[in-house]
Amino acid sequence: MRIAVIGLGLIGGSIALAARERAHAQTCGWDPDGAALDAAVRLGAIASGAGSLASAVEQSDVVFLAAPVGVLPELANEVLALAPAACVVTDVGSTKRAVVAAHADERFVGGHPLAGAETSGIAHARGDLFDGATWYLTPTEITEGLLYERLHRLLGSFGARPVAIEADTHDRLLALVSHLPHVFANVLVEQAAAAARANGERLPVVGPSFRDATRVAGANTAIWTDIYLSNRDALVPALDEAITQLSQIRDAMAAADAAGLARWNDTAAEDRQRLMEVHLDAADLHELRVPVPNRPGVVAQLALELGRVGVNIADLALYPAPDMSEGVVAMWVSGEEDALRAAQLIGDLGFPVLRP
Amino acid sequence: MRIAVIGLGLIGGSIALAARERAHAQTCGWDPDGAALDAAVRLGAIASGAGSLASAVEQSDVVFLAAPVGVLPELANEVLALAPAACVVTDVGSTKRAVVAAHADERFVGGHPLAGAETSGIAHARGDLFDGATWYLTPTEITEGLLYERLHRLLGSFGARPVAIEADTHDRLLALVSHLPHVFANVLVEQAAAAARANGERLPVVGPSFRDATRVAGANTAIWTDIYLSNRDALVPALDEAITQLSQIRDAMAAADAAGLARWNDTAAEDRQRLMEVHLDAADLHELRVPVPNRPGVVAQLALELGRVGVNIADLALYPAPDMSEGVVAMWVSGEEDALRAAQLIGDLGFPVLRP
Repeated sequence: MRIAVIGLGLIGGSIALAARERAHAQTCGWDPDGAALDAAVRLGAIASGAGSLASAVEQSDVVFLAAPVGVLPELANEVLALAPAACVVTDVGSTKRAVVAAHADERFVGGHPLAGAETSGIAHARGDLFDGATWYLTPTEITEGLLYERLHRLLGSFGARPVAIEADTHDRLLALVSHLPHVFANVLVEQAAAAARANGERLPVVGPSFRDATRVAGANTAIWTDIYLSNRDALVPALDEAITQLSQIRDAMAAADAAGLARWNDTAAEDRQRLMEVHLDAADLHELRVPVPNRPGVVAQLALELGRVGVNIADLALYPAPDMSEGVVAMWVSGEEDALRAAQLIGDLGFPVLRP
Repeated sequence: MRIAVIGLGLIGGSIALAARERAHAQTCGWDPDGAALDAAVRLGAIASGAGSLASAVEQSDVVFLAAPVGVLPELANEVLALAPAACVVTDVGSTKRAVVAAHADERFVGGHPLAGAETSGIAHARGDLFDGATWYLTPTEITEGLLYERLHRLLGSFGARPVAIEADTHDRLLALVSHLPHVFANVLVEQAAAAARANGERLPVVGPSFRDATRVAGANTAIWTDIYLSNRDALVPALDEAITQLSQIRDAMAAADAAGLARWNDTAAEDRQRLMEVHLDAADLHELRVPVPNRPGVVAQLALELGRVGVNIADLALYPAPDMSEGVVAMWVSGEEDALRAAQLIGDLGFPVLRP
């Protein structure tokens, strides 16, 4: 199988590596940045860089477009014009409607792997980046069945879990669980910064809750401006709804409506619980919460004890008290059996274990 | 010194313990819940429970009010009427204006320790809970100097860092860095939950960014309804400002104003950097980011290696990739020297170290 990757950053480079290592494919690549192309060759992701977009694409069975969201619609059209009749063309953009709507071609399948985030660039590319990752695919009613099957199986060989979803649904949901949180984080930072300026830069100790709430504030501007613009059809109504809700809360506060605020907060508590359950059930993850003193080695001790008996911590978060004197370690463990085992072991070490 | 603690939960119990252990004070306490009072006696926080509010207060040099925010103004008046002329009365509520405005008494100093969070109840009380914690105090122009000094020194003996701030400033800043993030978290959860309901409960994998952004959603309703109401004078304008900002962003998106969105996002990036610097400088914390594979023992290995040479990790956060195959461990280490040492050690283990 011949695979072309257009755009060799973290995701494109990892796709090329996975294609060689997992699918034993011939890979070629193209990138407007010659340095990225050279790095991909040195890394072994591609045998050699193509001289042009056309020469990368014209012999391929599968083409991945790993370019910024803003250029994807035009790039998709360009590549579809160059690609063979039996080639499947896909992309990895964070929004799907615009690139899917840019043409009506049975060879195109939109894609969005949920992988990568805290690092970027070809230097961090890894062939196992997609192990266990959800990879959204947005076929349409005109998508050619055999080409879709080829892509689906290829992604499976990367270790990913392909999940079909309508482009429209994808973008509306991502607007709520990813794009709107980014907007909120920016707004929180802006208001706190304005207050700090008015207050001679002195802010109260902000603590982990403000840090968590604003962790994604000011994320990469080039990428996020693209995302906001390409998903504005979903984001504008989401913002309208958020503004409506905030106005209702504002009015309830102004009217000192204790019962209304309590109802609203109770609903949020129940809904969050249900949302997290849905999410965690997917991988059968079980949460354990362990209050611990904040001293060197205590997280190590817990992790080691569990590692020793082969219990993997799928996810780990430490919520320190504002004074850093103690913390609660939240751990997510796969499977009820391992969770019980973990709780038993941690209890034996003398720590209380809470199971929310 | 005789110290009375009214309300024996996590904070009240910890104050009583600190008063005995650190200030060698005689402590007594009162709580409308007899079980909490008994537990405080068993824990050694107080010698015996008082039979009434009056008998707890009438012989005291210092009285701490550790009751819910909503009852504090009335309770403060009641206690000030019972307390001796040379007794300082303080509270530990999360908002300060209402309780300070409830009277004009030179013996009252509002207080707010930034400690406790993920646990509650007398069972988790600890005499060292306030070690290194910022403890806001809100004296006014009529506050009696000697009484203020007594309280300030007492809190210092607990290990806390007393910081004087105007009640009004305190409430406006806390509205922005604590209360508004709670409102936003609830709104994010509500919108995602509504979408999940419309979509047959199927949500995309939400990943750590949504989880972080909504961690405080639906926090304890009794406590938070009180906080929202008692701080509504600061929160309503903060919400108005947030709504204005969101409307501007909404309009920029609807108008596809790429330059405006990019400017807004760049400003958020710079402001967040500056806010975090201000915060981190306070404790001279240095951040290290280490990309790691997500396997049992890797966090343990890092923590152990640093613990072995006596480098304390003041705070730790693991940001896993959505597919859980890898993660970035962020660590905050005190002092430039320890940070350099940590970076060297981690590098020697073969991990890249990023210093943001």
